[in-house]
Amino acid sequence: MEVIKEEGIVEERAMDITLKELGKKLQEFAKDRDWEKYHSPRNLLLAMVGEVGELSEIFQWRGEVEKGLPNWEDSEKEHLGEELSDVLLYLIRLADICGIDLGDAATKKILKNAIKYPTKLN
Amino acid sequence: MEVIKEEGIVEERAMDITLKELGKKLQEFAKDRDWEKYHSPRNLLLAMVGEVGELSEIFQWRGEVEKGLPNWEDSEKEHLGEELSDVLLYLIRLADICGIDLGDAATKKILKNAIKYPTKLN
Amino acid sequence: MEVIKEEGIVEERAMDITLKELGKKLQEFAKDRDWEKYHSPRNLLLAMVGEVGELSEIFQWRGEVEKGLPNWEDSEKEHLGEELSDVLLYLIRLADICGIDLGDAATKKILKNAIKYPTKLN
Amino acid sequence: MEVIKEEGIVEERAMDITLKELGKKLQEFAKDRDWEKYHSPRNLLLAMVGEVGELSEIFQWRGEVEKGLPNWEDSEKEHLGEELSDVLLYLIRLADICGIDLGDAATKKILKNAIKYPTKLN
Repeated sequence: MEVIKEEGIVEERAMDITLKELGKKLQEFAKDRDWEKYHSPRNLLLAMVGEVGELSEIFQWRGEVEKGLPNWEDSEKEHLGEELSDVLLYLIRLADICGIDLGDAATKKILKNAIKYPTKLN
Repeated sequence: MEVIKEEGIVEERAMDITLKELGKKLQEFAKDRDWEKYHSPRNLLLAMVGEVGELSEIFQWRGEVEKGLPNWEDSEKEHLGEELSDVLLYLIRLADICGIDLGDAATKKILKNAIKYPTKLN
Repeated sequence: MEVIKEEGIVEERAMDITLKELGKKLQEFAKDRDWEKYHSPRNLLLAMVGEVGELSEIFQWRGEVEKGLPNWEDSEKEHLGEELSDVLLYLIRLADICGIDLGDAATKKILKNAIKYPTKLN
Repeated sequence: MEVIKEEGIVEERAMDITLKELGKKLQEFAKDRDWEKYHSPRNLLLAMVGEVGELSEIFQWRGEVEKGLPNWEDSEKEHLGEELSDVLLYLIRLADICGIDLGDAATKKILKNAIKYPTKLN
């Protein structure tokens, strides 16, 4: 996460990481460990499916779960944050390895969805 | 995406969206369409699994795929960008509905992984 | 499905197909269409993940669903049967291509689970 | 697994279990442990997605895998058999809880696919 040398902005950025920053961290992480050779598109996709499975396990025996997870222990929420992150990190890495700008694609997809599903006011 | 009123930074931010910005767009999107009532944690999780399925379909009959997708048509890459985005958007929305700060969790997870898998120099 | 030439048994078998019979049908299906070349383990696995996604889509916006699906239309149940089948058929095909006897493995897994999770009477 | 009292058939059946027989075993397994209350459709679906994740983990860093798994250790094949089984068992249980006859649905789906994808001779 590059720190921009201005007060106020620095603070916000520290809490508000971009997809590109995460992607750069993951690239360095793989390079430092000589793991780039394992990061083919289908390997990363299957690794992501593995993490989606771990995420699902958290929710599997709970029946319906309320927004905000009112009755969850802090340790359970932390575990959830880790599994959500694992899915995110493999997803970002997969996009990068495929040469897809995920932030750009996601922004366009929201616009496309807004046209597909207009609001009543439109 | 909030525009920061300084040259240079504005431009970079336009290409470099944060998880929080995407989350905010998704929140507004749901609110404008009165879809918040459908956005329970397990509904969003299953919707994400559905999108992971669509992403997998793109890769299913191709055998091993090379980094950078050298032989893919532009339309195939665009389709891939859309499916990657769909997974991302439901993942961000799921995290938000659960009250998890995904950018923060992902940053911590990378640090945790760095300790778990030290580089040779460490 | 091989028909056993005895009354009573024939009828039951017609309703009660084995994993091996389904596997054989799928093998013939692939051979007749010259699709065996596409049926590598990871291709089939990703195809199965695609079908798991389609299955999840059926359940994604419904909130909790009651056993027996009391309020579902017949057409919805038929659709569900098809998606459950698609997952099953790729799973059986994947096992066969990997040289795994799925019926045998599943029987052993139930025994293993019975030891892992004893009943109160044990 | 019901044993049919005739030589030859008995033996084959022992190796060749039906979906109904597996479903019955799973029903008894859940009943004996008072687990029926956890077996709602979406709980079982998410449990199955969890197992699909574990199955994917086996294949995730291997690159393309050859049919028959020529270079796999016996212990790896056994692990694969267990994960394939876990997916199968939750799938069968999900179908049963939804009131879907999976063997019947799968047989029909193969017929439907045969019409959708005719062979050259048809």
